[in-house]
Amino acid sequence: MAFQYLTNIPLDEALAEYMTVLEERGFFARRSEKVSVNRADGRLTASAVYAKISAPHYNACAMDGIAVYAKNTFGASVTTPIRLQSNQYKVVDTGDPLPESCDAVVMIEEVLWKDEGEVVISAAVTPWQHVRQIGEDICEGDMLLPSFSRITPAAMGAMLASGNLVVDVLVKPRIAIIPTGDEIVTPTATPGEGSIIEFNSTIFKAMLERWGADAEVFDIIVDDLKSLEAAIRNALTHSDGVIIIGGSSAGREDYTAQAIGAVGDVVVHGIAIRPGKPAVLGCTEAGKLLLGVPGYPVSGMVILEEILRPIIIRMQASPFLPPDEAKAVVSRTLNSSLKYREFIRIRLGYVNGKLVASPLMRGAGVVTSFVKADGIIDVPQNVEGYEPGQDVTVRLLRPIEDIKRTLVITGSHDPLIDETTDLMRRTWPSAAVASSHVGSMGGLFAIKRGEAHMGGIHLLDESTGEYNIPYISRHFPGGGVLLVEGVQRVQGLMVSRDNPFEIEQFADITRDGIRYINRQKGSGTRILCDYLCRKEGINPGTIDGYDREEFTHTAVAALIAAGSADVGLGIYAAAKIYGLDFIPICHETYDFLLLQEAYDLPMVQRWLETMRNPAFTKRVMEMGGYDVCNPGHITAF
Amino acid sequence: MAFQYLTNIPLDEALAEYMTVLEERGFFARRSEKVSVNRADGRLTASAVYAKISAPHYNACAMDGIAVYAKNTFGASVTTPIRLQSNQYKVVDTGDPLPESCDAVVMIEEVLWKDEGEVVISAAVTPWQHVRQIGEDICEGDMLLPSFSRITPAAMGAMLASGNLVVDVLVKPRIAIIPTGDEIVTPTATPGEGSIIEFNSTIFKAMLERWGADAEVFDIIVDDLKSLEAAIRNALTHSDGVIIIGGSSAGREDYTAQAIGAVGDVVVHGIAIRPGKPAVLGCTEAGKLLLGVPGYPVSGMVILEEILRPIIIRMQASPFLPPDEAKAVVSRTLNSSLKYREFIRIRLGYVNGKLVASPLMRGAGVVTSFVKADGIIDVPQNVEGYEPGQDVTVRLLRPIEDIKRTLVITGSHDPLIDETTDLMRRTWPSAAVASSHVGSMGGLFAIKRGEAHMGGIHLLDESTGEYNIPYISRHFPGGGVLLVEGVQRVQGLMVSRDNPFEIEQFADITRDGIRYINRQKGSGTRILCDYLCRKEGINPGTIDGYDREEFTHTAVAALIAAGSADVGLGIYAAAKIYGLDFIPICHETYDFLLLQEAYDLPMVQRWLETMRNPAFTKRVMEMGGYDVCNPGHITAF
Repeated sequence: MAFQYLTNIPLDEALAEYMTVLEERGFFARRSEKVSVNRADGRLTASAVYAKISAPHYNACAMDGIAVYAKNTFGASVTTPIRLQSNQYKVVDTGDPLPESCDAVVMIEEVLWKDEGEVVISAAVTPWQHVRQIGEDICEGDMLLPSFSRITPAAMGAMLASGNLVVDVLVKPRIAIIPTGDEIVTPTATPGEGSIIEFNSTIFKAMLERWGADAEVFDIIVDDLKSLEAAIRNALTHSDGVIIIGGSSAGREDYTAQAIGAVGDVVVHGIAIRPGKPAVLGCTEAGKLLLGVPGYPVSGMVILEEILRPIIIRMQASPFLPPDEAKAVVSRTLNSSLKYREFIRIRLGYVNGKLVASPLMRGAGVVTSFVKADGIIDVPQNVEGYEPGQDVTVRLLRPIEDIKRTLVITGSHDPLIDETTDLMRRTWPSAAVASSHVGSMGGLFAIKRGEAHMGGIHLLDESTGEYNIPYISRHFPGGGVLLVEGVQRVQGLMVSRDNPFEIEQFADITRDGIRYINRQKGSGTRILCDYLCRKEGINPGTIDGYDREEFTHTAVAALIAAGSADVGLGIYAAAKIYGLDFIPICHETYDFLLLQEAYDLPMVQRWLETMRNPAFTKRVMEMGGYDVCNPGHITAF
Repeated sequence: MAFQYLTNIPLDEALAEYMTVLEERGFFARRSEKVSVNRADGRLTASAVYAKISAPHYNACAMDGIAVYAKNTFGASVTTPIRLQSNQYKVVDTGDPLPESCDAVVMIEEVLWKDEGEVVISAAVTPWQHVRQIGEDICEGDMLLPSFSRITPAAMGAMLASGNLVVDVLVKPRIAIIPTGDEIVTPTATPGEGSIIEFNSTIFKAMLERWGADAEVFDIIVDDLKSLEAAIRNALTHSDGVIIIGGSSAGREDYTAQAIGAVGDVVVHGIAIRPGKPAVLGCTEAGKLLLGVPGYPVSGMVILEEILRPIIIRMQASPFLPPDEAKAVVSRTLNSSLKYREFIRIRLGYVNGKLVASPLMRGAGVVTSFVKADGIIDVPQNVEGYEPGQDVTVRLLRPIEDIKRTLVITGSHDPLIDETTDLMRRTWPSAAVASSHVGSMGGLFAIKRGEAHMGGIHLLDESTGEYNIPYISRHFPGGGVLLVEGVQRVQGLMVSRDNPFEIEQFADITRDGIRYINRQKGSGTRILCDYLCRKEGINPGTIDGYDREEFTHTAVAALIAAGSADVGLGIYAAAKIYGLDFIPICHETYDFLLLQEAYDLPMVQRWLETMRNPAFTKRVMEMGGYDVCNPGHITAF
C-alpha cells in the first residue's frame, strides 16, 4: 500500500479547481443527437429550432358556419338583414380551408336558412373574422426554441405543428457506477455477518437520473488495485465519467485514489466538508470524469450533490438555480467542527407561525436521515455550531407549503405513532407527520417551547404513582395544553428467546455477566428504570450497560435479538417484532400532550379522528401489549 | 345528428360533480402492484413499508483500527499509555464485524505498534465508540414509509438496506388517448390544404406522463359515431380512462358527446371556462373515465390541466398543492367575458423591482402561447378584465428566480432578436430572453412605463428623415434611456416569387386586384407605410387590405407566400425565408432602446457583449438585407 495523505481543501475551491481541469480537458464539450420529437420531453435542444412550415399552414375556418366574402355582408343588421344566394357562400366546418374568394366565416348560429339555398344573415362580419390565418400560431422560419431550451409538452406540440419531427438535443451525460469492497454484497444476496448490502449504487443511479443523466451500475469490484483499474478502464469505454463507490479514503484497503491516479489524474483527494471528506476528484487525460466517493451512503450522497450535481447541470447547459431557502429556529444545540463545512440534514416543523429546524442523526451511514430530511443546514467552516433558539437559514428539500401542513410529533417513541400516521394517510392520503423520538421529557419541553404540536408521553410520578397529569400540572401551571388519551401499555424486560439467563424480575439485571441496555436520559422508559432501581435499592453503577443508551424500543430489542446485549426495558410490541421473551413489569399510560393552539389545525383534527376510529383500536390490539379505553379523548388543563 | 345543447356550468361545480360520480362508481379504488425497488423511484407506496432486517444488521466497526474491550483501555493517556497484548485486540477495517468480546474500536492513528504483537494506546475509548451498532440506521420492524409515500432515491436505499427488494406501489393511472377528425393527419404525413397535423395527442401524452400516468395514443378516428364508439370500447379494455380529442362541441360532425353517451354517461357537457368550454365529462357504469376535449390545443390543454390533473393527482393519493403565486402588474388592457372564467397565459417580466404580466395571444389554436407562458391569470367569471397597471395574482409556471434573471425585450419585431438570444445562450446557456412584438412605439412606451428592459425600434421622423433619436428626445426629455446601436436593414415590398403582378414601386399597391397586407398600428413598418402613402399622395382607403394587420414580418411574408395576399411591406430577411421576390424601398435604422437603470444588469451586459461579438455580425449578414457598423455601441441621452 502506497501511503496517501488526504488534503482538507474548502469545497468551493475543490469544485472550482475540478471544474477548471474538466473544462481544459474538454469534458464540457457538448454532443448532440437527433431524437423523435414525441420522445423529447424534458430534453435540451442542442441548437435553435425553427418552424419548417407555418401553423396553420392554410387559412382555416375557425367556426362551423358559412364562408363568405365579408364585403357582401356589410350593412347587415337585425332590421336590415342581407340575403346571400347559394353561389355567394359555402357551408364550412371548423378546420376546413377557407374557400377561394371568401375572406370570413359567419357562425352557424347567425344563419337563417331559406328555400333554394338562399340564406339570410342579420349581422355583418369583418374581413378575416372567424378565420385562423396562415401562421396565426407559428410562421415558417420563426425560431421556436433557442439553443439549450428544456423541451416541454407544449414545445413538442409546437415542433410537430411546424413540421419538426425530429429534434437535435444534447446527449445525456452517461455515468458509470462501480461499487467496490470485499464486504459488500448485492441486495439480492442474503447478507451474512460482516457483509454489507450494496445499495449506494441504486441511490446514486436514481439521483443521477433525476438530474437528467443516464447512469449504469457495474458489478461490484473487490478491494484489489488491478481489478479496480481494469473495471474503471472498461466502464470508461461506455461513459463520460465513472463513479467509484468506497475505498476513497487512505486506509489499508483503500485503492480508489491509486486506481484513479493510474487511469488518469487525481485533482483533489480530501475536501473540508462533513460528511464526505475522503472524496477523490479525478479526470482522465481525454477529459473523462473519475469520482471516488466514500462508501458511507450519507457521505456519498453529499459528494454527489455538492460536486457532481453542479457538473451534470453544467454539462446540460442548464441554469444552476439557487436552492429554495427559509429562515428557521434551531431546536437544539448543534455542534460543528471548525475543520469542516458541514451539511446537516434537518426535520422542519411549522408550529405557531415559526419554522423549527431539528437536526437528524448525523452518522455517515444513516441513510434514513436522507429519507426524513425536509432541509439542510449548511454550517460554514468557521462556525462552531448553533444554540437552541438561534436563527439559521435552511435549504428546503420539500415545498414550504407541504411543511406547513405537517403535524409535528416530538416525544416518546412508540411504534403506534407510525401506525397511526399510516392509518391517517389511508383516509387522508396527503396527511403528513414528522415524528422525532426525544423521550417524554424532551417532548414536553418541545411543546413548552412551541416547537411541536404534539408529543407522546408516559411520565410516572413516583410520589402518586399517577402517570402524565402530575407532570403537566407542574410544567404547565397556566394551562395551554390538552391531554389526549392514548393507550395503556405493558412495560417489561425484553430478553432473548427462551430466556437463557433465567431473568425473572427487575433486580436480575444486576447479576454478574448480564449485559443490560438502557434508554436515553429523559425518556419515560429511562425514568421507569431509575424508579425501579430506587424502589429495589439498586445502585445503577452495578448494572453492566447502564450507560449504553438507545433511542427507541425497537433499537433495544434489535440489540438483544442480535446477542449484543442480554436484557433491556421496553414495550411488549417491540419484543414481539423480534421474537424476544418478555417479562412484564408494569402497565403504564402512554398519552399525547397537545399544544392547545394547535387543536383546531386540520392535521390535529385528523389525527384525533384517526385515534377515535375503531380501526385504530384494531391495529393497536394486533400489535400486542396494549389496552385502549377511550383513545383520542381530550382533557383540558 | 341529434341536437345537443352545451351547458355553462362553473368549473368548480363541474369538477366536483364529476369527482362525485367517478368516486361513486369506484374510479378512485386504488390498485397496487409489486415492483423491484431499484425501479421504484418516484412511485407511491401502496401500503406501509417495514424494515425486514436491521441496518446495520450486525455491530460493525466504524473505523480502521483495532477492536478492543473498552474497559481494558480505561485510564490510558499520553502520560500513562496502556499496553495491550496480541490476544487483547484484533486488527479491523471499517465495516468489519466487531469481534467477539470486543465493544469498541481504537482508530489506527492512535495505535503504536510494538514487537511481538504488543500495541500501545494513549487514549481511552468508551464502550461502543467507533462502532455502528445493530439498527443504528434502521431497526427491523420499524416503519420506513407510510402508505402513499413518494419514493425517493434515499428511500430506495433504505428499503434495500432493510431487506426490501420489492415494494408494493400504486398502479399508475392508464389513460388512452384517441384523436378524432376527418381533417387531421399524423405528424409524419405531408399535410395538404385542409388537413391539420395531429399533435395534441403528443402534448397530452407528455403532460399525463409528467403527472405520473401512463398514456397510450391510439389511431386517429374519422368523424363517425359508430367508429368512435368502437374505438372507445376497444381503448377501455386497456385503460382506466379514455380521452377523446376533438368533436366535443355541438356541431354537424361532433360525435364525442354522443359516443360517450353510448358507452357510458355524460356527466357534464359544457363548462363556463375559456378556453375549453365544449368539454365532455363522462364515465362508464363500471367507473372508467371518458373525457371529451376540444380539438384546439390550447382548449384541450386547459381541460387537461383543470379537470384531469386534479383527478390524476387524487388517483395517486398525492397532495394537491396550491400553485406558486405572485403579485404582478398587468401591462395592457385585458378583457374577459362575464360568461366565462378565463385562463390567460402571460409572459412575466421583472423590471425595476416590479413583476409585469403581459397577456399572450389568446387564440385557442395558439400552442406557442403555452410554449412562451411564464404564468397564468385566472380571471373569475364575474370579472370583466383588468386595466393596465392593475395588480393581479398570477400562477407561476416558472420559478420566480428564473423570471427575475430574464431579459425583457418589448418592441419592434426582427428575427435578429431570436438570433441574438440564441447566440447569447451559446455562451451563457442559462441566459433567458422574453421578447414581445408590440411594434416600435409599443416598445418605447413599455420602457417609459418601466415594463421592459429593452426594445427594438425603427422610428422614422418624417420632418428630419432621421431614425429613432428624435423620438427618444421627444419621449424622454429627462433622459433615463440609452440607445444601443443595432443594424441598418432594407425595407421593401415582398411579393410572390417572380413578381406575377409586376409590382415595381410603392404606389403599385393601390392597383386594382392587388391585395395588400399591412402591419399593426404603432409598428415602425406601419409608420413607414403611412409615411410612404403621404409622400406619394396615396389615400389609404384605396388600398385593398390596408385594414388587414399582422404583427411580424414573417407573418406578412407567410400570407403572401400562401397566396392569401399579394404584397406587403417588410424586411428582406423575411422575404428570403419564404423565397419571395423583394423590391427594396429604403434603408432604415433598427436600434434598441435600453432603460438606463437596466444597463448594469448581467443579462443586459451579456446581450451587449453578444452584439459586439463578430459572431453577431456574421449571423446577421447571413440572414441577408442587413448592414452593421458598430453594433452594441451605446449613446446616452
